[in-house]
Amino acid sequence: MNVAVNREAFRQAVANTLERRLFYIPSFKIYRGVAGLYDYGPPGCAVKANVLAFWRQHFVLEENMLEVDCPCVTPEVVLKASGHVDKFTDLMVKDEKTGTCYRADHLVKDFCNEKLQNDNTMTADKAAELRHMLAVLDDLSAEELGARIKEYGITAPETKSPLSDPYPFNLMFQTSIGPSGLIPGYMRPETAQGIFVNFKDLYYYNGSKLPFAAAQIGQAFRNEISPRQGLLRVREFTLAEIEYFVDPEDKSHPKYSEVADLEFLMFPREEQTSGQSTRTIQLGEAVSTGIVNNETLAYFIGRVYLFLTRLGIDKDRLRFRQHLAKEMAHYAADCWDAEIECSYGWIECVGIADRSAYDLRAHSEKSGVDLVAHEKFSEPREVEKLVIATVKKELGLAFRGNQKMVVEALEAMDEKEALEMKATLESKGEAEFNVCTLGKNVTIKKNMVTISKEKKKEHQRVFTPSVIEPSFGIGRIIYCLFEQCFYTRPSKAGDEQLNVFAFPPLVAPIKCSVFPLIQDKKYDAVAKLISKSLTVAGISHKIDISGATIGKRYARTDELGIPFAITVDSTSSVTIRERDSKDQIRVNVEEVVSVVKDVTDGQSSWADAKGRFPAHSSVSADA
Amino acid sequence: MNVAVNREAFRQAVANTLERRLFYIPSFKIYRGVAGLYDYGPPGCAVKANVLAFWRQHFVLEENMLEVDCPCVTPEVVLKASGHVDKFTDLMVKDEKTGTCYRADHLVKDFCNEKLQNDNTMTADKAAELRHMLAVLDDLSAEELGARIKEYGITAPETKSPLSDPYPFNLMFQTSIGPSGLIPGYMRPETAQGIFVNFKDLYYYNGSKLPFAAAQIGQAFRNEISPRQGLLRVREFTLAEIEYFVDPEDKSHPKYSEVADLEFLMFPREEQTSGQSTRTIQLGEAVSTGIVNNETLAYFIGRVYLFLTRLGIDKDRLRFRQHLAKEMAHYAADCWDAEIECSYGWIECVGIADRSAYDLRAHSEKSGVDLVAHEKFSEPREVEKLVIATVKKELGLAFRGNQKMVVEALEAMDEKEALEMKATLESKGEAEFNVCTLGKNVTIKKNMVTISKEKKKEHQRVFTPSVIEPSFGIGRIIYCLFEQCFYTRPSKAGDEQLNVFAFPPLVAPIKCSVFPLIQDKKYDAVAKLISKSLTVAGISHKIDISGATIGKRYARTDELGIPFAITVDSTSSVTIRERDSKDQIRVNVEEVVSVVKDVTDGQSSWADAKGRFPAHSSVSADA
Repeated sequence: MNVAVNREAFRQAVANTLERRLFYIPSFKIYRGVAGLYDYGPPGCAVKANVLAFWRQHFVLEENMLEVDCPCVTPEVVLKASGHVDKFTDLMVKDEKTGTCYRADHLVKDFCNEKLQNDNTMTADKAAELRHMLAVLDDLSAEELGARIKEYGITAPETKSPLSDPYPFNLMFQTSIGPSGLIPGYMRPETAQGIFVNFKDLYYYNGSKLPFAAAQIGQAFRNEISPRQGLLRVREFTLAEIEYFVDPEDKSHPKYSEVADLEFLMFPREEQTSGQSTRTIQLGEAVSTGIVNNETLAYFIGRVYLFLTRLGIDKDRLRFRQHLAKEMAHYAADCWDAEIECSYGWIECVGIADRSAYDLRAHSEKSGVDLVAHEKFSEPREVEKLVIATVKKELGLAFRGNQKMVVEALEAMDEKEALEMKATLESKGEAEFNVCTLGKNVTIKKNMVTISKEKKKEHQRVFTPSVIEPSFGIGRIIYCLFEQCFYTRPSKAGDEQLNVFAFPPLVAPIKCSVFPLIQDKKYDAVAKLISKSLTVAGISHKIDISGATIGKRYARTDELGIPFAITVDSTSSVTIRERDSKDQIRVNVEEVVSVVKDVTDGQSSWADAKGRFPAHSSVSADA
Repeated sequence: MNVAVNREAFRQAVANTLERRLFYIPSFKIYRGVAGLYDYGPPGCAVKANVLAFWRQHFVLEENMLEVDCPCVTPEVVLKASGHVDKFTDLMVKDEKTGTCYRADHLVKDFCNEKLQNDNTMTADKAAELRHMLAVLDDLSAEELGARIKEYGITAPETKSPLSDPYPFNLMFQTSIGPSGLIPGYMRPETAQGIFVNFKDLYYYNGSKLPFAAAQIGQAFRNEISPRQGLLRVREFTLAEIEYFVDPEDKSHPKYSEVADLEFLMFPREEQTSGQSTRTIQLGEAVSTGIVNNETLAYFIGRVYLFLTRLGIDKDRLRFRQHLAKEMAHYAADCWDAEIECSYGWIECVGIADRSAYDLRAHSEKSGVDLVAHEKFSEPREVEKLVIATVKKELGLAFRGNQKMVVEALEAMDEKEALEMKATLESKGEAEFNVCTLGKNVTIKKNMVTISKEKKKEHQRVFTPSVIEPSFGIGRIIYCLFEQCFYTRPSKAGDEQLNVFAFPPLVAPIKCSVFPLIQDKKYDAVAKLISKSLTVAGISHKIDISGATIGKRYARTDELGIPFAITVDSTSSVTIRERDSKDQIRVNVEEVVSVVKDVTDGQSSWADAKGRFPAHSSVSADA
């Protein structure tokens, strides 16, 4: 209980600071807002821009990825092919009186949690059952969830009215394109589909060579039934997605060795099902022992680890959790989530999935355009190929109207099946054959089909590439970063707690503040001069020539997570204060901008700067 | 005619190159696409990212603007207040047989153009009438357009069926928010509204001081009836908008002097209506002679000029055109468009409007939240205030059910009107008074209202700020840049025309390419080493170790607008070639990255580099 209360209090303290300093704002607040929609205010927007700029540097530039930018408005046909029109749903129940909608699993979850916490009369068996229910909640069908709701007597939270049976609600925002209303469309639920449908052009752009990666940053939309968890579950969000196209027969990665030695917290499938906990594993070992499916997947896990920790995520509160077999889509070869710990628990912030050939095949089929790669052989190879030749005349006589289905089924046999039939036909003259499109067995006679293996020369291999997809929920990463960077410390007088965001310079919304120590025209002039030079150097900063005490001004700048503060206390030299240590150094006016530039863009560290310049050891001016 | 043919041929040549090199791709191409939706492929996406990064540097950072990031999904109430739900429409006609929709003005325009070009039997009077029609087309009402369509006998272009009367079609993509379908919403048609609804918080964030600017970059959506003009009229696009909030009584700008000396092509209202042409005007003169309404508007016109020309827009094909009085919204104080010339004519790419207090007032009224600024007086000021005191009892007796309307109209009188009524009441005992909400005059008697002027002490002035809005259509700017940077030159053999995009390094999608001169492991190794250093230095580049001739490789890199090419022809030194001059210099391997960095990020020019390093004067390797 205490932990939960503390967690709640901590979350509130962070949220208050974030809202008061406009890191984010509930959207359309003056109209009482809309659940699940948030604005980034100035410092939040700057943090987001920094995270995205670093993402581009760390992934797109470093790996020469092909970045694309596709529209959010997407015609139905694309999302029909991808499966979103049919399957991108949550189960919903309606208050039968008022029509208010709820997520069915949320209601069952709330019921179980409430019982477990407050019902002291419950038997141990009953408690175990409810805990089991919480564990399997994500896997229940509409019927099973409906049965639980009935069994537990769950009613609508506000009115206590009875609830409808659960039914699937599609989470895409629907619209229509063009004036006639005839082209149904949706706001895209992910950016990935825009890349898949462009595979052919991108492959050509890359010189028809594999592997290569395409990337996209953009808005995605999910019309959540009842958004909760503040910035973690929202109706519109920024995704940054990578689709790495690779030969399914060779998932090695040229730069794998650069990450193989990394060690960090992993939570493999095995550990989860056997009730063990997260452990530190070396990435190379995870690959060699088969925990991680392949080198490319491992390479991206390693790169994601580096990305998140360089942003300022605590490596002890970051883990890579493997999906359980039942969590994964049937086509997925392996899938890992980068989960970051915050007051809401471990939150999935990046998904890294080997989606095999699923998406390209789906769009190939629906569009009729081949989305394949070619491997040209240096010299032609002789291969043995199965040849199934049907004799249309005989089949027509035997099956009449059903001939086409029988022919298709025969031609679709795999090698094993075909060779078995060949043997049976040779020994018995006929064979029973199941035609699933007819839903029955038919008798195939020897004169209806010839099955043989022939040698052929092939000049190339044609195949559908596998896709490895690291997908980043930028808003979630930023929210977790906010929580992990937040701390409080007592004011100098000890009468209040001051808030600090310990952002690394890389993500800090503003790199530096500039204050004249006292209100004085000479100092103001120096401050403005420094401000001008900072602008020329491209360093975002905030100049504060208000009359507030220097302590108050430090407190304000700490609360925005500004790592350095320049205080003008003479016309020849100034002090630079570091946010977390509160240490100060004295630097000449001419040098100050280059020193700040070096420590903020990572050319040197604060420790270096302290070594180079004298400490300023006046009584601390902090509030 | 010839000009039109050449223009069309030029446009096709640009479009072919842009599509072939994936600067852009019709979205969802494998599904035959959707009109008005385009993807940026890798080089297009890089150009866009560069333009936006420079926009942030030039506007947001330079002016300390408050950048925000609001959702695209917007509830109806916001767009009702802004006027978009009622007025964001185009006039549409339907083919009465097939239901196909057309923009009414497009059909009339096509008819007039076709007649003017091809009908040799037309009288001079008729031709003049059609030319007049083309000029006034934008101002016609639904009825007037409908009458023209009937008069000219215009039918549906494909089927020749009769057309419906024109009727307004709202251009917003509609959707609904939440599972109940009860919150109607739209995809935002502009980003500005997200800023206006946050004014109160942003003003507080800025220390409750004016002026300040907020900015936003993001997607906007317009469900065009029948998109034409390729990348210029699309259904989803990126806007970058600035809302500069300023005291309506003081529109001076602190940095105005920095732009006052700029001279460029302007096209004031006066010149347009009197049939004159564009002329070069000094910005400061335009303000002092009253052509441009105020300093702040002029400051942004100047900054936009600098922004566009630094991107590479030709100053002779860029003009600032003032809106005619009838083009402007009734509330606008002044409005200028930055128009860039391309094969489609002069295209509006940036609008710079003084929108006065319209938007903030509209949201204040609809939401009930005051969106105002305060000017605190250093000491209280004595002001004379008009006081209109109505006597409800007498008014009730006289007007019964209409009392409320009469009271409101009386209280809404301005000073002049009120003092006139006071005089009339004093001299005649009663006064005629028009109540527009009743649509008639009523007689006001002396006992019904007291009008007086009283002295009051005021501590502050409360007012609704004016908004100056520079709004950038990023896609349009980029398209015009593509056209203006494109040229062809003959290959060395003279047998073909090679395409070049002369992008300045600032916007070039890739800054530099790296080639080994011949296929040789030693050279490949040097090329890879240089590539690695370029990555560390954050310079986007393309390494090409294909076997193509060096000439072919230069041609490929020119067609992507890559400004510099490094050719590895030894293990100790390499050549750098500049795209447009084809000049080459020889530089040591250790120095090459820093030279390229300096010339691409603007620290030095190619001329500087040529001065510092020896020319490489081998026979040109160009194709």
